[in-house]
Amino acid sequence: MNWLDSVKFDQDGLIPAIAQDAHTGRILMVAWMNREALQLTAEKKRGVYWSRSRQKLWHKGEESGHIQVVKEIRLDCDADVITLQIEQLGGIACHTGRESCFYRKLDDNQQWQIVDPVLKDPHSIYEHPQHEH
Amino acid sequence: MNWLDSVKFDQDGLIPAIAQDAHTGRILMVAWMNREALQLTAEKKRGVYWSRSRQKLWHKGEESGHIQVVKEIRLDCDADVITLQIEQLGGIACHTGRESCFYRKLDDNQQWQIVDPVLKDPHSIYEHPQHEH
Repeated sequence: MNWLDSVKFDQDGLIPAIAQDAHTGRILMVAWMNREALQLTAEKKRGVYWSRSRQKLWHKGEESGHIQVVKEIRLDCDADVITLQIEQLGGIACHTGRESCFYRKLDDNQQWQIVDPVLKDPHSIYEHPQHEH
Repeated sequence: MNWLDSVKFDQDGLIPAIAQDAHTGRILMVAWMNREALQLTAEKKRGVYWSRSRQKLWHKGEESGHIQVVKEIRLDCDADVITLQIEQLGGIACHTGRESCFYRKLDDNQQWQIVDPVLKDPHSIYEHPQHEH
Protein backbone atom coordinates (compact mmCIF):
# COMPACT_ATOMS: atom_id res chain seq x y z
CA MET A 1 0.00 0.00 0.00
CA ASN A 2 1.19 3.48 -0.81
CA TRP A 3 2.04 5.34 2.41
CA LEU A 4 -0.05 8.29 1.23
CA ASP A 5 -3.18 6.13 1.25
CA SER A 6 -2.91 5.85 5.05
CA VAL A 7 -3.17 9.61 5.41
CA LYS A 8 -6.61 11.07 6.04
CA PHE A 9 -6.99 14.30 4.16
CA ASP A 10 -10.03 16.40 5.07
CA GLN A 11 -12.99 17.29 2.86
CA ASP A 12 -10.81 19.87 1.12
CA GLY A 13 -8.08 17.29 0.53
CA LEU A 14 -5.80 18.87 3.13
CA ILE A 15 -3.99 17.85 6.30
CA PRO A 16 -2.35 20.18 8.85
CA ALA A 17 1.42 19.83 9.19
CA ILE A 18 3.33 21.07 12.22
CA ALA A 19 6.93 22.09 11.59
CA GLN A 20 9.09 21.65 14.66
CA ASP A 21 12.73 22.65 15.02
CA ALA A 22 14.63 19.36 15.03
CA HIS A 23 17.24 20.70 17.44
CA THR A 24 15.34 22.86 19.92
CA GLY A 25 11.89 21.27 19.69
CA ARG A 26 10.29 24.66 19.19
CA ILE A 27 7.07 24.60 17.17
CA LEU A 28 7.79 26.98 14.31
CA MET A 29 4.64 26.98 12.19
CA VAL A 30 1.57 25.06 11.12
CA ALA A 31 0.53 24.93 7.48
CA TRP A 32 -1.57 22.73 5.23
CA MET A 33 -0.59 20.02 2.77
CA ASN A 34 -2.48 18.31 0.03
CA ARG A 35 -1.41 14.87 -1.18
CA GLU A 36 1.03 16.30 -3.71
CA ALA A 37 2.63 18.63 -1.15
CA LEU A 38 3.12 15.76 1.28
CA GLN A 39 4.60 13.54 -1.44
CA LEU A 40 6.98 16.31 -2.53
CA THR A 41 7.97 16.98 1.09
CA ALA A 42 8.93 13.32 1.51
CA GLU A 43 10.70 13.09 -1.85
CA LYS A 44 12.68 16.31 -1.70
CA LYS A 45 13.05 16.43 2.09
CA ARG A 46 11.99 20.07 1.93
CA GLY A 47 8.88 21.65 3.44
CA VAL A 48 6.26 21.91 0.69
CA TYR A 49 2.75 23.06 1.57
CA TRP A 50 -0.54 24.01 -0.02
CA SER A 51 -1.26 27.71 0.22
CA ARG A 52 -4.97 28.09 0.94
CA SER A 53 -4.86 31.82 0.24
CA ARG A 54 -3.13 31.44 -3.12
CA GLN A 55 -4.59 28.01 -3.92
CA LYS A 56 -1.29 26.62 -5.14
CA LEU A 57 1.69 24.61 -3.99
CA TRP A 58 3.99 26.57 -1.76
CA HIS A 59 7.64 25.52 -1.65
CA LYS A 60 8.50 27.15 1.66
CA GLY A 61 11.45 29.47 1.12
CA GLU A 62 10.81 29.91 -2.60
CA GLU A 63 10.88 33.69 -2.17
CA SER A 64 12.46 34.20 1.25
CA GLY A 65 15.20 31.57 0.95
CA HIS A 66 13.97 30.25 4.30
CA ILE A 67 13.91 26.66 3.14
CA GLN A 68 13.00 23.87 5.55
CA VAL A 69 15.20 20.77 5.50
CA VAL A 70 13.00 17.88 6.62
CA LYS A 71 14.60 15.31 8.92
CA GLU A 72 11.56 13.27 9.95
CA ILE A 73 7.88 12.93 9.10
CA ARG A 74 5.37 11.51 11.57
CA LEU A 75 1.64 10.79 11.49
CA ASP A 76 -0.73 10.76 14.45
CA CYS A 77 -3.06 8.02 15.67
CA ASP A 78 -6.03 9.39 13.72
CA ALA A 79 -3.84 9.84 10.64
CA ASP A 80 -5.09 13.39 10.27
CA VAL A 81 -2.11 15.46 11.48
CA ILE A 82 1.53 15.43 10.30
CA THR A 83 4.60 16.55 12.23
CA LEU A 84 7.87 17.48 10.56
CA GLN A 85 11.21 17.67 12.29
CA ILE A 86 13.01 20.37 10.36
CA GLU A 87 16.10 22.48 10.11
CA GLN A 88 14.89 26.02 9.38
CA LEU A 89 17.36 27.79 7.11
CA GLY A 90 17.76 31.45 8.04
CA GLY A 91 16.26 30.73 11.47
CA ILE A 92 13.00 32.41 10.46
CA ALA A 93 9.82 30.44 9.81
CA CYS A 94 7.21 33.20 10.21
CA HIS A 95 6.23 35.69 7.51
CA THR A 96 6.47 38.42 10.18
CA GLY A 97 10.25 37.85 10.29
CA ARG A 98 10.15 35.94 13.56
CA GLU A 99 11.63 32.55 14.37
CA SER A 100 8.22 31.04 15.06
CA CYS A 101 4.64 31.95 14.19
CA PHE A 102 3.74 31.35 17.85
CA TYR A 103 5.04 34.64 19.20
CA ARG A 104 1.92 35.65 21.17
CA LYS A 105 1.48 34.35 24.68
CA LEU A 106 -1.58 34.64 26.90
CA ASP A 107 -0.46 36.52 29.99
CA ASP A 108 -1.84 36.48 33.53
CA ASN A 109 -4.14 39.41 32.71
CA GLN A 110 -5.79 37.45 29.90
CA GLN A 111 -4.11 39.46 27.16
CA TRP A 112 -2.11 38.25 24.20
CA GLN A 113 1.43 39.57 24.57
CA ILE A 114 3.99 39.57 21.77
CA VAL A 115 6.99 37.97 23.45
CA ASP A 116 9.35 37.24 20.54
CA PRO A 117 11.40 39.72 18.52
CA VAL A 118 11.27 40.36 14.79
CA LEU A 119 14.64 39.06 13.58
CA LYS A 120 14.42 40.54 10.12
CA ASP A 121 12.14 43.14 8.54
CA PRO A 122 9.64 41.29 6.30
CA HIS A 123 10.17 43.98 3.63
CA SER A 124 13.78 42.88 3.34
CA ILE A 125 12.73 39.21 3.18
CA TYR A 126 9.95 39.39 0.62
CA GLU A 127 9.40 41.39 -2.51
CA HIS A 128 5.73 41.38 -1.58
CA PRO A 129 5.37 40.94 2.20
CA GLN A 130 2.40 38.77 3.18
CA HIS A 131 2.86 37.01 -0.14
CA GLU A 132 4.67 33.84 0.85
CA HIS A 133 2.10 32.42 3.09
CA MET B 1 -11.11 43.49 24.03
CA ASN B 2 -11.69 39.96 25.22
CA TRP B 3 -8.68 37.81 24.34
CA LEU B 4 -11.01 35.20 22.83
CA ASP B 5 -12.18 37.71 20.22
CA SER B 6 -8.67 37.69 18.71
CA VAL B 7 -8.89 33.97 18.06
CA LYS B 8 -10.07 32.88 14.62
CA PHE B 9 -12.29 29.85 14.94
CA ASP B 10 -13.10 28.05 11.69
CA GLN B 11 -16.51 27.68 10.05
CA ASP B 12 -17.34 24.98 12.60
CA GLY B 13 -16.33 27.25 15.46
CA LEU B 14 -13.17 25.26 16.15
CA ILE B 15 -9.42 25.83 16.33
CA PRO B 16 -6.70 23.16 16.43
CA ALA B 17 -4.64 23.05 19.63
CA ILE B 18 -1.23 21.40 19.81
CA ALA B 19 -0.27 20.02 23.21
CA GLN B 20 3.48 19.99 23.71
CA ASP B 21 5.34 18.56 26.68
CA ALA B 22 6.61 21.61 28.59
CA HIS B 23 9.76 19.79 29.67
CA THR B 24 10.85 17.71 26.68
CA GLY B 25 9.24 19.71 23.87
CA ARG B 26 7.68 16.57 22.45
CA ILE B 27 4.43 17.13 20.55
CA LEU B 28 1.97 14.90 22.35
CA MET B 29 -1.34 15.40 20.57
CA VAL B 30 -3.47 17.72 18.49
CA ALA B 31 -7.14 18.22 19.28
CA TRP B 32 -9.83 20.80 18.63
CA MET B 33 -11.24 23.53 20.83
CA ASN B 34 -14.33 25.65 20.54
CA ARG B 35 -14.51 29.00 22.30
CA GLU B 36 -15.79 27.49 25.52
CA ALA B 37 -13.08 24.81 25.59
CA LEU B 38 -10.37 27.44 25.10
CA GLN B 39 -11.83 29.63 27.80
CA LEU B 40 -12.03 26.71 30.23
CA THR B 41 -8.47 25.68 29.37
CA ALA B 42 -7.23 29.17 30.28
CA GLU B 43 -9.37 29.42 33.42
CA LYS B 44 -8.71 25.99 34.85
CA LYS B 45 -5.20 25.57 33.42
CA ARG B 46 -6.25 22.11 32.30
CA GLY B 47 -6.52 20.78 28.75
CA VAL B 48 -10.16 21.01 27.70
CA TYR B 49 -11.12 20.22 24.12
CA TRP B 50 -14.12 19.77 21.87
CA SER B 51 -14.67 16.16 20.88
CA ARG B 52 -15.77 16.18 17.25
CA SER B 53 -16.76 12.52 17.42
CA ARG B 54 -18.89 12.94 20.53
CA GLN B 55 -19.87 16.56 19.85
CA LYS B 56 -19.27 17.61 23.41
CA LEU B 57 -16.67 19.19 25.66
CA TRP B 58 -13.88 16.83 26.52
CA HIS B 59 -12.02 17.44 29.74
CA LYS B 60 -8.88 15.52 28.85
CA GLY B 61 -8.27 12.91 31.55
CA GLU B 62 -11.90 12.79 32.67
CA GLU B 63 -11.91 9.02 32.25
CA SER B 64 -8.23 8.10 32.05
CA GLY B 65 -6.94 10.40 34.78
CA HIS B 66 -4.40 11.62 32.25
CA ILE B 67 -5.04 15.27 32.97
CA GLN B 68 -3.01 17.96 31.24
CA VAL B 69 -1.71 20.80 33.42
CA VAL B 70 -1.39 23.83 31.17
CA LYS B 71 1.66 26.05 31.68
CA GLU B 72 1.41 28.34 28.67
CA ILE B 73 -0.98 29.17 25.84
CA ARG B 74 0.22 30.69 22.57
CA LEU B 75 -1.46 31.83 19.38
CA ASP B 76 0.07 31.94 15.91
CA CYS B 77 0.39 34.83 13.46
CA ASP B 78 -2.85 33.94 11.66
CA ALA B 79 -4.62 33.46 15.01
CA ASP B 80 -5.92 30.10 13.84
CA VAL B 81 -3.73 27.62 15.75
CA ILE B 82 -3.11 27.33 19.50
CA THR B 83 -0.12 25.74 21.24
CA LEU B 84 -0.22 24.55 24.83
CA GLN B 85 2.82 23.85 26.97
CA ILE B 86 1.63 21.11 29.26
CA GLU B 87 2.58 18.67 31.95
CA GLN B 88 0.97 15.37 30.98
CA LEU B 89 -0.10 13.48 34.09
CA GLY B 90 0.49 9.76 33.74
CA GLY B 91 2.91 10.39 30.89
CA ILE B 92 0.34 9.18 28.36
CA ALA B 93 -1.47 11.54 26.00
CA CYS B 94 -2.62 9.06 23.33
CA HIS B 95 -5.72 6.90 23.54
CA THR B 96 -3.58 3.98 22.32
CA GLY B 97 -1.70 4.10 25.65
CA ARG B 98 1.37 5.77 24.17
CA GLU B 99 3.15 8.91 25.33
CA SER B 100 2.36 10.74 22.11
CA CYS B 101 -0.14 10.35 19.29
CA PHE B 102 2.74 10.78 16.83
CA TYR B 103 4.14 7.27 17.11
CA ARG B 104 4.35 6.49 13.38
CA LYS B 105 7.39 7.58 11.44
CA LEU B 106 7.91 7.51 7.70
CA ASP B 107 10.93 5.29 7.10
CA ASP B 108 13.43 5.23 4.25
CA ASN B 109 11.32 2.66 2.41
CA GLN B 110 8.31 4.97 2.40
CA GLN B 111 6.44 2.98 5.00
CA TRP B 112 4.87 4.17 8.24
CA GLN B 113 6.67 2.44 11.09
CA ILE B 114 5.38 2.32 14.65
CA VAL B 115 8.41 3.46 16.62
CA ASP B 116 7.01 4.12 20.10
CA PRO B 117 5.87 1.56 22.68
CA VAL B 118 2.45 1.19 24.27
CA LEU B 119 3.08 2.19 27.88
CA LYS B 120 -0.26 0.99 29.21
CA ASP B 121 -2.98 -1.23 27.75
CA PRO B 122 -5.88 1.04 26.72
CA HIS B 123 -8.29 -1.51 28.24
CA SER B 124 -6.79 -0.80 31.63
CA ILE B 125 -6.98 2.97 31.03
CA TYR B 126 -10.53 3.27 29.75
CA GLU B 127 -13.77 1.57 30.57
CA HIS B 128 -14.58 1.94 26.87
CA PRO B 129 -11.36 2.17 24.87
CA GLN B 130 -11.58 4.59 21.93
CA HIS B 131 -14.10 6.50 24.00
CA GLU B 132 -12.06 9.35 25.38
CA HIS B 133 -11.09 10.97 22.16
